[in-house]
This record gives sequence, structure tokens and C-alpha cells, in this order.
Amino acid sequence: MEKVYIYSEIAGKLASQIRNGILKPGEKLPSVRMLCQQHHISMSTAKRIFLELEAQSLIEAKPQSGFFVSKQLYLKLPLSEVSRPSLTAKDNEPDELITRVYSNMGREDLTLFSIGVPSGNLLPMAKLKKEIVLATRSLKEGGTEYEPLQGNLNLRRMIATRSLAWGGNLDENDLITTSGGMNALSFCLMALGKPGDTIALESPCYPGILQLAVSLGFKVLELPTHPITGIEMEDFRKLIPKINLCLLVPNFNTPLGSCMPDAHKKEVVSLLAEQNIPLIEDDIYGDLYFGSHRPKCCKSFDVEGNVLWCSSISKTLAPGYRVGWIAPGKYKDKLLKLKLVHSISSPSIIHEAVGNFLKSGRYENHLRYLRSTLMSNYQNYVNAIAGYFPEGTKTSRPQGGLALWVEFNKEMDTTKLYDLAIRQQISIAPGRMFTLQDQFENCMRLCIGLPWTAHIEFKLRQLGNLAKMIQ
Amino acid sequence: MEKVYIYSEIAGKLASQIRNGILKPGEKLPSVRMLCQQHHISMSTAKRIFLELEAQSLIEAKPQSGFFVSKQLYLKLPLSEVSRPSLTAKDNEPDELITRVYSNMGREDLTLFSIGVPSGNLLPMAKLKKEIVLATRSLKEGGTEYEPLQGNLNLRRMIATRSLAWGGNLDENDLITTSGGMNALSFCLMALGKPGDTIALESPCYPGILQLAVSLGFKVLELPTHPITGIEMEDFRKLIPKINLCLLVPNFNTPLGSCMPDAHKKEVVSLLAEQNIPLIEDDIYGDLYFGSHRPKCCKSFDVEGNVLWCSSISKTLAPGYRVGWIAPGKYKDKLLKLKLVHSISSPSIIHEAVGNFLKSGRYENHLRYLRSTLMSNYQNYVNAIAGYFPEGTKTSRPQGGLALWVEFNKEMDTTKLYDLAIRQQISIAPGRMFTLQDQFENCMRLCIGLPWTAHIEFKLRQLGNLAKMIQ
Repeated sequence: MEKVYIYSEIAGKLASQIRNGILKPGEKLPSVRMLCQQHHISMSTAKRIFLELEAQSLIEAKPQSGFFVSKQLYLKLPLSEVSRPSLTAKDNEPDELITRVYSNMGREDLTLFSIGVPSGNLLPMAKLKKEIVLATRSLKEGGTEYEPLQGNLNLRRMIATRSLAWGGNLDENDLITTSGGMNALSFCLMALGKPGDTIALESPCYPGILQLAVSLGFKVLELPTHPITGIEMEDFRKLIPKINLCLLVPNFNTPLGSCMPDAHKKEVVSLLAEQNIPLIEDDIYGDLYFGSHRPKCCKSFDVEGNVLWCSSISKTLAPGYRVGWIAPGKYKDKLLKLKLVHSISSPSIIHEAVGNFLKSGRYENHLRYLRSTLMSNYQNYVNAIAGYFPEGTKTSRPQGGLALWVEFNKEMDTTKLYDLAIRQQISIAPGRMFTLQDQFENCMRLCIGLPWTAHIEFKLRQLGNLAKMIQ
Repeated sequence: MEKVYIYSEIAGKLASQIRNGILKPGEKLPSVRMLCQQHHISMSTAKRIFLELEAQSLIEAKPQSGFFVSKQLYLKLPLSEVSRPSLTAKDNEPDELITRVYSNMGREDLTLFSIGVPSGNLLPMAKLKKEIVLATRSLKEGGTEYEPLQGNLNLRRMIATRSLAWGGNLDENDLITTSGGMNALSFCLMALGKPGDTIALESPCYPGILQLAVSLGFKVLELPTHPITGIEMEDFRKLIPKINLCLLVPNFNTPLGSCMPDAHKKEVVSLLAEQNIPLIEDDIYGDLYFGSHRPKCCKSFDVEGNVLWCSSISKTLAPGYRVGWIAPGKYKDKLLKLKLVHSISSPSIIHEAVGNFLKSGRYENHLRYLRSTLMSNYQNYVNAIAGYFPEGTKTSRPQGGLALWVEFNKEMDTTKLYDLAIRQQISIAPGRMFTLQDQFENCMRLCIGLPWTAHIEFKLRQLGNLAKMIQ
């Protein structure tokens, strides 16, 4: 897993250049022969690169003239803005809208564009069930006993093995399991912060993280964030003296889907380590890349053990299973103590089953399928937005993950749009949910984890019509 | 379930009088005829009462002379002392011994008198496994989806139904599920308290609760507690102005096993409601009564919704499943919000399986078996202590639950005993773990949840010999 094949490395670079608009729609790509010369690769490797990009609908072949950047609509929609929140830390309650939107969870009468999880029929349910049955049989005492405090060994070993792919190089002793991803973040924040501390977060930010931070009495400093490259480094550097804790989602965060370049990740890790400010890294979307390979994490550059890498299977496998984990670096003792105090242990049957599922290799197959589905959903969503939404609508350029950020013009009020849409059985996540400040009123998040159907397209069209009505 | 038969009511009263020493070992009981007259019951009912008490080894029949209070050794051991902690609230870290003792969890080379859970072979494992398999099949989307925020409906309904037995009269909307009992307590404390608040607890107290309170920045006020009747009401009344929160384990708490009389429960509820001080009631041992019927809870007397009744299946069915719940009364909204923020949802498969297990009626059968095993364990432990431990050793008189509190004379240091015992593969819980103060050095807790065998008796004998050596 350590070796990233040269072809996929080059394909990945070209793909990002296309997604980020460095290569423009309709622009001609270098010929196969030129690519060979530039990168010292064989003809067959160069051809394979073009085939891969074509398979991703990023480029199109024109007979007799070569390859061109695809003119698909989703590349033509303008990019949403870089966020510019106030740089004063806030501790007000998040918008009550959050509770209203989350209360739609599980409602079958609604089209839930608002909930950021993959739809059930994208998940390998039969195989998961089988693993649960096997785990109840194989576990000592049928899983009725408390597990060891660090968590299920099988699961920790598999997470450690998989960490090689992103340069984590963890072993099972570096990991602590939790009951899902939010539980992992909640433990980290409780272990490392205290009321009155200032925590830096991306802006816009996942509402659950805002709620968590405020409920623990933290002040929230929202960081200016670019829809493609994540937090703005220049601002970040200046803000470091103000912060006690930092929580980032460097890979495909919700709602923007941005991915921090390696150089930014590395710098953030080193700047925070210098000041001994813990970095909590939420990597729940890291495996859902649309490009050719899994991006690195901040943890990949963590020499001092100052990064607490958190993840879960809630966005890739089974939200309802509640399986998450932390690689807490030098904070391991604190985190273990906190886990003991607040939960004693995790449910062993489920954790054992997931560990075995990861071991079987089925997870990689499933991820390949899920990634390609999400990427094609993304393209379909953007096509629908380009066709049905008001003129001038901008979107993010997610390079992975489950979310698309939609920015209407300044007159739009997406809270109002929410109220109208819910009457047509559509639930969206208005922009105000993703901040403690007065911003993003003209934005919303759409989840791209629902399988693409004529019905979904129809619902996006309805939503577009409503937006046109009130904008 | 609501009707408690007259015979078991009278049997229960006699049983407590015997356990509490009001009726002394060897004392003659009223004749069958006298009992009939006193209580206006039939001869057959009176006989049934004596048979039940005899079955519990509390009384012995002597031919031609009637029934006498049993002279079994466990009734002859002197009662451990009423605790007299300092009445100043403390916020120091609990003794580091806690971590050492808990790290023995799962070690198969040790005899774990230190861990307060029923042994695996006392649990209905085959039937539980079957329910898990059924739940993976029957649940929508195989349980991969998030559950509704309040938790699994099946489980909440069954807990509500069972609450009739102790006068809870809950319905499913009154309940929120959690990932185990500690998770329930942790949510209650986080929702209702803030750093610097003073929380009142029984003394001695379960170490996990002490750790939780201190880790949240609370000050801990330890309450003088009687080994039979729980907190001392006179002290409690005086201390109310000092406290912001109260957490009690009124039924068979660990380590004492005391059970608050109904009148005390009622008064505590009313005193706290008057001052609007939330009462968190941990009832995890409530179903493990040795007497004839399940005791009421503080929640049974809760008119104002000021009691947060918490419980779990960790002490009765499957510690490793992590299934707990809260009936939060008027604090429901706060608790729901906190659950959403810190955990989103519980693992649905396990919660559904437990709900179905409760529905099947197997739980009641299992509890009957578990209770009679624990009661006979208790008698065997006390016999062994009377036979092998130093002269003058006192014990609690648990009326239910999993723990026995052992009090040596003042020269004993049970931390030293722990170190010696561990070399002989015996783990005990020294008294210092159960307080933030300098007390209980001469005490320890023994878990009575291990099945009684010649090996266990041998280990208690070894422990007694060690105690004699250093006392």
C-alpha cells in the first residue's frame, strides 16, 4: 500500500488541476507523447493516465485531435467564496435551526438533502450482518464482558494497518476506540480543553462540532476557509496566539469538501506543536476521495505526538453502528482516563464485527464502489443545479466526501427556503447552521449521499424553482 | 405486577427485620397462629411466609417448638460502621489506586474480587446471542442507520413497562437510551452541573462516580451513610444549602449494599424539589434485591419531575453490551440536546436485541436465578469471612446487589493487603478507592458476583490469612 504507482500520482495531479480550474474546461491536454517525455514514463503508462481521467469524466477524447478538459457543467459553475468570518471568538448558542433540521432524521416522507450520511442502499449490509453474527459466536463470553479499556484489538490492528496508506504508521497501541466519531471528538475536547478556552475551527463548520464546543463552554474562533484548499494559512498564522485548541477536518470537510494541500497540513502541525496547542484532526471523510489516491492527514506529519487523529466508519460503512477511534499521540493517558470515566468500554460485538469486516478486504471493495458513486452523484447534482437553480448560483468543488456547498446571490435567505422546501417534502441544511456568526444566510449544504434517481433530480428541480421564486 | 401479594409483603418485612438485626439470631418467631391473628391472614398464607423465609435461610424450623431466626454466621458478624466523612466538599483527584485496580479488568490469571459485575457464566448468553442475530435481520437497513435521538423504541417501551413494578409509571416518551450506565450518569452531570458546583454523594461511593465528578470540575460532598439505611437523613437535611446537585444510589449501592427506606426516599425527593436541586438516581442494582420484592425508587415519589432516574443492564445482563437509559423528568430537553452533541445515537442492533430480550419474559426468569445465586454467594462469603478472616472483622448487610463491604480493625491497611494479595493472584478493591478523603484504609469491597466454588473459598481463605498476617 505504501507505493503509490507513478501513473496514479500523475493522474491525481492532473485531476486536481482540472477540479481546481487551473486547467480550464475545453482546454487541450498535452499529447500522450509529451506526457511520456515530461514524466519519463512509458507510452502505456501515459495512456493509462488518460483512460483514468476519462473514466472520471474529467477529460474527453476527440478523435484525431487528442484529449480535452471536459466541458461538463459542473466545472463551469462559479466557485463559492472564501469565507470571511469575524476574527473575534464567539460563545453564543448555535442557531436553533440545527435542532429543527436534525429532528428530520429518519423521516421517510422527506427527501433528506440535509443529513450528511451515505444512504443505506449504498452500504454492504448483508456482509456486515454476517460479521455481527460471527462476532457474537466467536467473542469470549459472547461479548457480554467489558472490553479492554483501549478497545477491541482486532479493530485497532486493522485501523493501524490501514494507516500505512496515508503515512500514519500507527500500531494498535496508538489507538483508542470510541462509540462513533462525535464521541471521539467529544472525548478529545473534554480531555484537552476547559471552559473559557478558545478553539479554532474551519468556517463554515459541521454544526455538531459547533454545538459540542459551545456546550463545553469554549469560545469559537472561526477561521477563513477556502473552498478548495481549506483554512487560509496567512490568517491562521496570525491567529495562533489567540487559540488554546484547534479542531480541523483537513480532508473533504463538511460542508465545503475542501482538502488542505500537504504543505499546509505540514505547516499547521509544526506551528501548533511549537506552541504546544493540541490539534484534533477529524478525518472521517478521508477515505472518500474522488481523486486517484487517499490524501495524507495532519497526523502524517506529526513528529511530536501533538495531533489527535480521529475517525469512524459512520460516513463510509454504518452510521448506526457507532464505531469510532482516536490516535491521541502524547495525550493517550488523558484520553484513556476520560474514556474510563465517561463510558467504561464500547460495545464489543459491534466493534469486533467491524474489525473483522475490515480484515476481510471487503472494505476496500466497498470504498471503491462508494467513492465512484459519490463522485458521479456530485456530477449529477451539479448538472441539476446548473440546469434548475437561479442564474449565478455558485458551488464548492468537493474533492471527496458527502457534501456540496451551494451559494446563492446575496438576496437569498436559505432559512426561508428551508421553510418552503419542507412543505414540498424536501429537507436542506441552511448556511446559518454552519456558523455562530451572521453569515452564510445565502448558502446551504446538500448531501450527495442519496442514490441518484429521477426522483432526486425532480426534487432538486423543485428546490431550484423555489429558490428562483424567492431570490 | 402492581399487586404485591400480602404474603410476600409480610415475608419481606420479617426478612428485613432479620437482616437488620431487629430480630436477633436464635430469637423465636411468632407462631403461625399468632401471625394469622396479627395480620388477618389465613393459616395457609402464614405457612407460606415461613416457608419463604426458610428457603432464604433466614429462619430455621425446630420440631415441636416453632421457627427461630437462623444462627448462620453471616448474621453474627458485627455490622460495619456508619461512615463519618468530613463535611467539607473536596475536589482532589481520587486515589491513583483506582487506575491500578481497574487495569486488572479482564485478567484471567487473577481472582477478581475487585470488579463489580456478575460473572459471565451467570448470564443467559445463548439467548442474548440469538436476539442479536434476530435484531440484525429485523431492523430496518440492518441497523446501519442512526436511530431516533431518544433511542430504540422497543427498548424504551420495555423499560417503561417494567417501571410499573416499582411505581415508576413511565411511558416510552419519558426515556432516553444511552451507551451504558456510566454514560447515563455522565450525561446527567454534564447537562445539570458546571465546574465549581458541589455534588452530594454517598460515602463510601463507587469510584467511577467520584472520578466523573472530579473530572467535570465538581466539588464532592461525601454524605454520612449507614450500611443498612443509606444516607443519614439528619446530616443530609443540614447539608442541603451547600449542594447544587445530588447523585444517590438508593438501592443496594456499591460498596455498602444499603437500601434507603421509602420514607427516606420520599423525604429526599421532596427536600431537593423544594430547592430545585436535581436528584440523579442511579438504580442499576434495583432488580437485584435479596428480599421478597423490588424496592421503590426515589423516582417513585417524584411529583415535580426533578429526579433523573438512570439504570442499565450492565449489572444484570451484559456489561459489555453498553445499554443504559435515563428517565430525565423535566430535564428531558437538556439531556436530549447533550446526547445529540456528544454521541448522536446509540448502536441500534444491540439496543433492539436487549429490548426484545426484555419483551420475551426471559429477563424475569434470569433475574430470579441471578438474585438467588447472589444471595447464596453472599451467605457463603460471610461464612468464609467468619471462618478465615481476623477476629473482629465487620461486614455490611447488603440487601441486594453485588458487593460486600468488609471492615477490618483500625490497624489494617487494605492498600498493603492489595499489594500482598495480587502476588497470590487475588485482586481486591481497597477502601481508599471509594472516597476522596482519608478514610476507609481498613476497609475493602468484595464482589459477590463470582460463582461460588471451592477455588473461590480457597482464595478467600488465602486473603484471610494475608489479612491476619499484617493486621
